[in-house]
Amino acid sequence: MLVRIASFDACWEVHRELYMTAFRHLKSVIRLNELAEDPLDLTSDGVLSPKRIDSWFKEALGLKLLFGTERVGDNTLSALLDLAEETHLIEKMEAMQRGDILNAIEGYESENRSVLHTAMRDFFEQPNESPIAKEASKLAYAELEKLKEFLREVESPERFTNLVQIGIGGSELGPKAIYTALEAFRKPGRKAFFLSNVDPDDGAAIFREVDLAKTLVVVVSKSGSTLETLTNEEFAKDFFKKAGLDPKKHFVSVTGKGSPMDDPQQYLASFYIWDYIGGRYSVTSMVGGVTLAFTLGMDRFLEFLRGANAMDKVALRKDPLENLPLLSALFGIWNRNFLGLPTVAVIPYSQALSRFPAHLQQLDMESNGKRIDKRGKPVDFDTGPIIWGEPGTNGQHSFYQSIHQGTTVVPLEFIGFKKSQYKTDMIYEGSSCQEKLLANLFAQSIALSMGQKSDNPNKVFPGNRPNRILLGEKLDPYTMGAILAYYENKVAFQGFCWNINSFDQEGVQLGKKLALKIIDQFVTLRVGKPIETKTFPQGAAFLKHLKSE
Amino acid sequence: MLVRIASFDACWEVHRELYMTAFRHLKSVIRLNELAEDPLDLTSDGVLSPKRIDSWFKEALGLKLLFGTERVGDNTLSALLDLAEETHLIEKMEAMQRGDILNAIEGYESENRSVLHTAMRDFFEQPNESPIAKEASKLAYAELEKLKEFLREVESPERFTNLVQIGIGGSELGPKAIYTALEAFRKPGRKAFFLSNVDPDDGAAIFREVDLAKTLVVVVSKSGSTLETLTNEEFAKDFFKKAGLDPKKHFVSVTGKGSPMDDPQQYLASFYIWDYIGGRYSVTSMVGGVTLAFTLGMDRFLEFLRGANAMDKVALRKDPLENLPLLSALFGIWNRNFLGLPTVAVIPYSQALSRFPAHLQQLDMESNGKRIDKRGKPVDFDTGPIIWGEPGTNGQHSFYQSIHQGTTVVPLEFIGFKKSQYKTDMIYEGSSCQEKLLANLFAQSIALSMGQKSDNPNKVFPGNRPNRILLGEKLDPYTMGAILAYYENKVAFQGFCWNINSFDQEGVQLGKKLALKIIDQFVTLRVGKPIETKTFPQGAAFLKHLKSE
Repeated sequence: MLVRIASFDACWEVHRELYMTAFRHLKSVIRLNELAEDPLDLTSDGVLSPKRIDSWFKEALGLKLLFGTERVGDNTLSALLDLAEETHLIEKMEAMQRGDILNAIEGYESENRSVLHTAMRDFFEQPNESPIAKEASKLAYAELEKLKEFLREVESPERFTNLVQIGIGGSELGPKAIYTALEAFRKPGRKAFFLSNVDPDDGAAIFREVDLAKTLVVVVSKSGSTLETLTNEEFAKDFFKKAGLDPKKHFVSVTGKGSPMDDPQQYLASFYIWDYIGGRYSVTSMVGGVTLAFTLGMDRFLEFLRGANAMDKVALRKDPLENLPLLSALFGIWNRNFLGLPTVAVIPYSQALSRFPAHLQQLDMESNGKRIDKRGKPVDFDTGPIIWGEPGTNGQHSFYQSIHQGTTVVPLEFIGFKKSQYKTDMIYEGSSCQEKLLANLFAQSIALSMGQKSDNPNKVFPGNRPNRILLGEKLDPYTMGAILAYYENKVAFQGFCWNINSFDQEGVQLGKKLALKIIDQFVTLRVGKPIETKTFPQGAAFLKHLKSE
Repeated sequence: MLVRIASFDACWEVHRELYMTAFRHLKSVIRLNELAEDPLDLTSDGVLSPKRIDSWFKEALGLKLLFGTERVGDNTLSALLDLAEETHLIEKMEAMQRGDILNAIEGYESENRSVLHTAMRDFFEQPNESPIAKEASKLAYAELEKLKEFLREVESPERFTNLVQIGIGGSELGPKAIYTALEAFRKPGRKAFFLSNVDPDDGAAIFREVDLAKTLVVVVSKSGSTLETLTNEEFAKDFFKKAGLDPKKHFVSVTGKGSPMDDPQQYLASFYIWDYIGGRYSVTSMVGGVTLAFTLGMDRFLEFLRGANAMDKVALRKDPLENLPLLSALFGIWNRNFLGLPTVAVIPYSQALSRFPAHLQQLDMESNGKRIDKRGKPVDFDTGPIIWGEPGTNGQHSFYQSIHQGTTVVPLEFIGFKKSQYKTDMIYEGSSCQEKLLANLFAQSIALSMGQKSDNPNKVFPGNRPNRILLGEKLDPYTMGAILAYYENKVAFQGFCWNINSFDQEGVQLGKKLALKIIDQFVTLRVGKPIETKTFPQGAAFLKHLKSE
């Protein structure tokens, strides 16, 4: 099956086969490889000048992307912009947002779906006019209305103060990261907890802490059949029953229409998601919506959506220099494919964003950790890097030793804010906490890029550690939405550039399949039968290690 | 200055210069490089046999290290053991534990200290007999007695239920990871919080939640001058004062004797640490001790120390095959230096260990993220890898796509337990949560190593992703102590093998220095003066970006 992306121009049709065959034969890629032999040396006298720091930035929606500390000069930047054009990145973003079928591998069985998370928030200015995107937005808006009504009902009088979200992967990481980021904006008394792991200790710890009578439980699974989630749901219901409470009066589901979890006999309400929303792209759908609207209030949740939507529009800007997610994607590709750097550290200088790197880890690695292109051919270049990170300044007292002086160069993506969320701050020795935080962020950016010479080899810092900074005014719901969509779109752009399918996750299937086989072996043991080792001898061999002497 | 390591034999003296000059000229390294050209293929029929899974493991202190899923055959294992001998790993561990000065760079200004975290717990069987180690243990034991007395005092009647530990880097990561791991063993009503970041939002969130009147604050800084910690201490005191409480009656310090924080005018008590305890190795000293003993009770804290101590003795075993931390270090070196893998993912299948990867990230990357050897010469091979990870099964729904099918191979270190911590578990569809957790762990280990063939390129799993499993009975204080020391000693062994100084952290200094300059610029702005841009023009240029339009 051939995926047609209608708006590509004739030129694209002509060069298509060539491009599909070899990323490395692209003109811009050849040029970038030449440039990578002698990349900009940030440690050279005068290179990281105040003027460069001053002028190498772009801004959108109150977010500044500062990139003077990347190893990119004028020629490289211009070749990267050529790459964007040669790989039709903006056209592909248009195709995605209007609902073309981008989640597909040509000629092989694949999910074959549109990718429409951007439609989950397209309720504000200049909504997409494609019928497919419009329809998806209409459906999403209806769920939003349903949620508004549901909250109104359970809030007068207030029936719940706590919420426990049960879900795993995208049904936890994104919602938890955003909830943690915006805790400062919670409605008084409202609190959310997240239960994901099948580890029974995880659930026990939460349900001991909350007042079950005042607790709403949101169970999230698109298929309605995620093993961990169903297990945890049963586990949770057990706690309610033992406390003499009826789970049906406390549980709501977020799931696909018609799934086993779309069941009024079991749930107070069910909110819908669709197969064109990947788990890792689902924060702005009902997957994040129920919890965020419950804890922050509907108005703030809408502000969050408005920010995300505005950034989606930025991702459509034709001028790549004004398209922040695209620009960021290009720097990432330079570091990954041309400077050969295997990882990326995301370091928010904001404690509220402590879980955001874990979300980006999924978003990026599950999207772009791929080894075949969209035609099913193994790639001969590197795709998505390893994403990791912890908030600063903490990281400075941890892994920064390695970042400054280790043998593996790590490019960094910093995130910072001019103002803190709470107004509580204090002046200590002439500067505020927030100022100290920003001073550290800027100092690290400079130290990593410029390095330091010394006669003592232990005090030598080689420098040339590329990094860039996303700098916002303040981490509020709107800005959080914009940052989330900035990353979602950055990841999509990189996948477009590599011509891989960023929207499936076939790589998680094998482990799942084998786990079910071992679970069967456990079940066999429990009923006192011997394991049939032939069907899965490796699993049986591991189980033998569990016997205690 | 030349560091003498007294017990090395004559042979070592002869080969010293050669070894120091070039890791790559070692006989075993040459052999390992040859073997790496054709490493064990775990995807070949019959290679990962039940027999291999059955017999390729070693056990100590109830912990099994299963390594059948590493890309190591008999020849490679034997060459790795040769490497251990050629680089005198066990002699160096002996030298460390008896207090030789290992924290040094020859011929250059350096910290020039012993490394004696193992002495912080050497109170049990067969204590080290070296006078230096003995003296360090004696001092540590005196602090333990002091702590016992202090807790007795504040517990009858109970004055505190909450504890806030203020510290950053090693003064937070290790203690928080262990506290989180052992929460199931808390004394009823006792709870700890950790405050590290200079982000003011971090502190505000904690102090809003706790009952200050019942809160003990532990401020940890070896030097008594860590910027973030002092800032947070002032910030915390402010909350107490505003609540009409006297900080002196709530604050204790953990610091070096004679530091600015060793001050009875300011603190209810001060507990001591010494310059031979690196921050990242300090969990078993008073840095972790006050919080862990307060929340778990002294008996459980002692159990934790006993486990760590027992593993230190395992690390001295002469037979490298029975020396678990050494064995693990060798597999790591195989993956890093011979298979060329830049990162390591640590994946505990245990929610309680959720913060443990962050601790290991510091422990390993700050220790071994180095670019010069102990003679001050730049290395020409890779040192410590990038360490990252999240608990399983969560990771499976996140970055496992990339681990299975990405272009960058990631070796994994799994941690799992036969039993859960809480007795609360339930049978769902014939198996318990804990069984599901273990089934997933084993399934991933097999899937990653064996891979899968398929006609659909998207369903091809290349396999040969090396991994090993540390499998314990149950995560209790003793086992936690043993696992902590297993990693501490593993990291030390790798540093010994690379002949780098794993015990300093000069790489964090430059950023700190530049941050102070920018803080000065903030202070200047605050008093209304213009910044003197000449002294640090790059800092000044960044500050201009903070002006809002």
